[in-house]
Amino acid sequence: MIADLRALEPPQLESFTNSLVEQVVAAVTDKIPHLESSLAVAELTVALHYVLNTPEDVLVWDVGHQGYIHKALTGRMEELVNMREPGGLSGFLKRDESPYDFFGAGHASTSISALAGVCLADQVSGKSRQRVAVIGDGSLTGGQSFEALNHLGSLGADALVIINDNEGSIDATIGALHHQQSYGTYVQSLGWQYTFLEQGNDVRALVEALQHVLAQPGPQTLHIKTKRPDLSPPKSYKPGTTFQWWAAETMGVVLEKNLDIQLLSPAMFAGSGFGPLRELYPNRLIDTGINEAHTVSTAAGIVAAGGKAWVHIYSTFLQRAFDQLIHDVALQHLPVVFLVDRAGVVGSDGPTHHGVFDGDFLMNIPGATVWNPRNGNELQGMLLEAAARALEGPLFIRYPKSRTEGGTPKDFVAYEWMQKSEGSSLWLSTGALSDLIKKGQNHLHLGQNWPFSADFSSILSNFEEIHVFEESTGFGGLAGAVSALMAELDHPGKCITHKLPLEFIEHGPRLELLREHGFNNFL
Amino acid sequence: MIADLRALEPPQLESFTNSLVEQVVAAVTDKIPHLESSLAVAELTVALHYVLNTPEDVLVWDVGHQGYIHKALTGRMEELVNMREPGGLSGFLKRDESPYDFFGAGHASTSISALAGVCLADQVSGKSRQRVAVIGDGSLTGGQSFEALNHLGSLGADALVIINDNEGSIDATIGALHHQQSYGTYVQSLGWQYTFLEQGNDVRALVEALQHVLAQPGPQTLHIKTKRPDLSPPKSYKPGTTFQWWAAETMGVVLEKNLDIQLLSPAMFAGSGFGPLRELYPNRLIDTGINEAHTVSTAAGIVAAGGKAWVHIYSTFLQRAFDQLIHDVALQHLPVVFLVDRAGVVGSDGPTHHGVFDGDFLMNIPGATVWNPRNGNELQGMLLEAAARALEGPLFIRYPKSRTEGGTPKDFVAYEWMQKSEGSSLWLSTGALSDLIKKGQNHLHLGQNWPFSADFSSILSNFEEIHVFEESTGFGGLAGAVSALMAELDHPGKCITHKLPLEFIEHGPRLELLREHGFNNFL
Repeated sequence: MIADLRALEPPQLESFTNSLVEQVVAAVTDKIPHLESSLAVAELTVALHYVLNTPEDVLVWDVGHQGYIHKALTGRMEELVNMREPGGLSGFLKRDESPYDFFGAGHASTSISALAGVCLADQVSGKSRQRVAVIGDGSLTGGQSFEALNHLGSLGADALVIINDNEGSIDATIGALHHQQSYGTYVQSLGWQYTFLEQGNDVRALVEALQHVLAQPGPQTLHIKTKRPDLSPPKSYKPGTTFQWWAAETMGVVLEKNLDIQLLSPAMFAGSGFGPLRELYPNRLIDTGINEAHTVSTAAGIVAAGGKAWVHIYSTFLQRAFDQLIHDVALQHLPVVFLVDRAGVVGSDGPTHHGVFDGDFLMNIPGATVWNPRNGNELQGMLLEAAARALEGPLFIRYPKSRTEGGTPKDFVAYEWMQKSEGSSLWLSTGALSDLIKKGQNHLHLGQNWPFSADFSSILSNFEEIHVFEESTGFGGLAGAVSALMAELDHPGKCITHKLPLEFIEHGPRLELLREHGFNNFL
Repeated sequence: MIADLRALEPPQLESFTNSLVEQVVAAVTDKIPHLESSLAVAELTVALHYVLNTPEDVLVWDVGHQGYIHKALTGRMEELVNMREPGGLSGFLKRDESPYDFFGAGHASTSISALAGVCLADQVSGKSRQRVAVIGDGSLTGGQSFEALNHLGSLGADALVIINDNEGSIDATIGALHHQQSYGTYVQSLGWQYTFLEQGNDVRALVEALQHVLAQPGPQTLHIKTKRPDLSPPKSYKPGTTFQWWAAETMGVVLEKNLDIQLLSPAMFAGSGFGPLRELYPNRLIDTGINEAHTVSTAAGIVAAGGKAWVHIYSTFLQRAFDQLIHDVALQHLPVVFLVDRAGVVGSDGPTHHGVFDGDFLMNIPGATVWNPRNGNELQGMLLEAAARALEGPLFIRYPKSRTEGGTPKDFVAYEWMQKSEGSSLWLSTGALSDLIKKGQNHLHLGQNWPFSADFSSILSNFEEIHVFEESTGFGGLAGAVSALMAELDHPGKCITHKLPLEFIEHGPRLELLREHGFNNFL
């Protein structure tokens, strides 16, 4: 298809693009999220592959949502229909999938760093080729893009960054740069030449502009305006059926009763059911943009200044603020409350997005408290408890992207027995797994995953075989802590752990993935 | 002393400052690193505390090295003499130490986020006060400062950011922003008013400038030029005596023999003995600035582009690229080699800088290989092996900030027996601890900490009691992996772990800290 494209004359590009878009829309249907991000760059995608000699020339996309047309054009049209299905195409750019996917991209703001790497490598190897990155205005709010612009802008290498300005990303873009539309002075201050093209959806204008900027030496930016269909409306969840609904619903109560609490989120409000709350409390729900490090340190600053800060963040993005959790929050004993959304296997977003690392790493942060509710009602009880309690350090309330049965309304308890009988074997579990796994003889759910309750040691002493179930990758976490405690207690029994394997898990339905990765005999 | 200062008339400020500096220099002597950073802002410090009503007004310093004069002025002059000594003052800003230390700062680029937090909290509480952050030109290369400027610049709050431009931080500042001196257009593009003051070491000019900008509404920046004594000369280490010397020495060999290898470091070359190599290979030793996320993704980009990338980074700063390790390097199976310097307890830098988390978190990253040499010669063997081997994923070679005895030159081996005799107890250790701990009956050193060698299970099966020694905080790491393996093998014995406690460890001499935190009976 690329070869077909390159054989065309410029006047034929528009109808080529239109036909391509029609095929893609027919293939991917409504089930694919963020399709609008790709549609907005249909013309750009065609123009880039027309002008560049990909894959010899390097093309880096920032965040894969822009990449559906690119996938279609680079030999994957037939497979689009199965995108995000088990065994099907990834929803993101992926190196394993195609030589045209030069650099994987599920998290934002990495593309210009990758481009800097290409420039440095080519400097050593003497390779001459075009080097282009495409980044959206939303991804530009992530500080790594600044780091890369500032560094690469000083190297003098031939490189092109295309700013795809469509007024948003996963949510409306925040920040002064976008509000002021000061991209030109911004990139020039970082050593880049700046060219602006209003007609970012005119494929022939794009081809001309690209040919022009690619002929210039040194670091070049091309800022284009693109139009996309309206943003998907803020997600709303059917009452009582998902952890996300319970979180947003209960946050409404918390914010109503506690006028001093502010809730921050790095661009994830709309996707998580917080849309209506933002309307209600515009000054207390603060979208900080796609910048997790800043979000976490800002929360620390709020608490240091005498306020109360809660942070709503996806587990996979919390990885980007790991140091800020340690250095700014925990070390300073600042009681920030974290709603860690999408903790655990996320399903069709796949390996870039599974929230499978924080289960272990949060427990290794001194002074952290970690709660994992098993259902919506327990999540509700936890949020109310977090608001009422005088906390002495960070509290992490982790919940999966999952349906939940609800459960019985109740106050917060650190643990509860799911089943209790005779027998010497104990099943220990935490989070949504507690409701999913078939009950053992004796089954204890730890809502408070860490630290352990004062009587936990004496509970363990009643059993010979302790099975630990946990939706996390790694050697630590609940399983590691139970093992360590048993050794300390000189407990004569065995600890048998059931965790996710130490591998990257592909995309697929959440329950299927759990069955395939260690929990098949228990669900 | 603050009260004395505020009673002065402006003409008296200069002699006040001079006398203050004299006292500080006499107190801290040569033993304190980065004194020049503080001396450069002596006049600024005095001017700020003169104009502001601290601690009611908020003053946030970015990175504590600027803070020695501030400490002296805010009641800690007497204690300066014991700074960085056990029980003495921290070398950094620290909330526990003084109400004047509004926000702790050992890692760079966090101050403007903290300032944003103050503005948001004050918006809710209605508190009216001055809010000021001081950030150096070096710290501005960290993307979190951009995230905060862009966000806070759009909020319209009254806030002041002082850009302390002294041409460097821990090393000379890199990046186009600094080379072009385009701070004005940069901050204006992010919504900030800009004022420039050339005379950043003139205390009366500073007072006037501060009074002027603090009277303006909205987000304000004041860019000042300050002069500091020359940068400390690049560190050089006595041949053969430290891990740092062995790393730099061997990298010389590696770079000489492998012309395609590039070595990146986020501003840490000079402090780690790589100064001479940078002179020798200016195009292959690349200082990326204080921006760990960008550094790691750039390395991934180099490898994706067909090059070879090694990264030199401190353990404590690797925390800032945790997500990039997962998302850009490991998930894409890119064989970047990491020299993880300052892994373990670092000594007098204290809790912001101890490298005690990566020992656990690196082992939880799928596909990672982790090597911990016990001495300089083993480190040398590892670097040479890393250069020679066809790697299939990231390799982390971790070494402490420590002296080393050297040892016997030898090729890389995955493990070695330190001692072997009869008896049913096995001591397992990794890294420098292997040379430090008194030998057990049977003592196995794991140079390759992870993954385990094929014959490791059969070794374990010969022993009843396995002691694991590891310089790491947390429930995973080597101890967690050994426990998990023993459970999997149905090993009837016990695993007893010796790790650092789950707490933040204060500053002090490295060996003393190890003794005080779990290893007293073994060193």
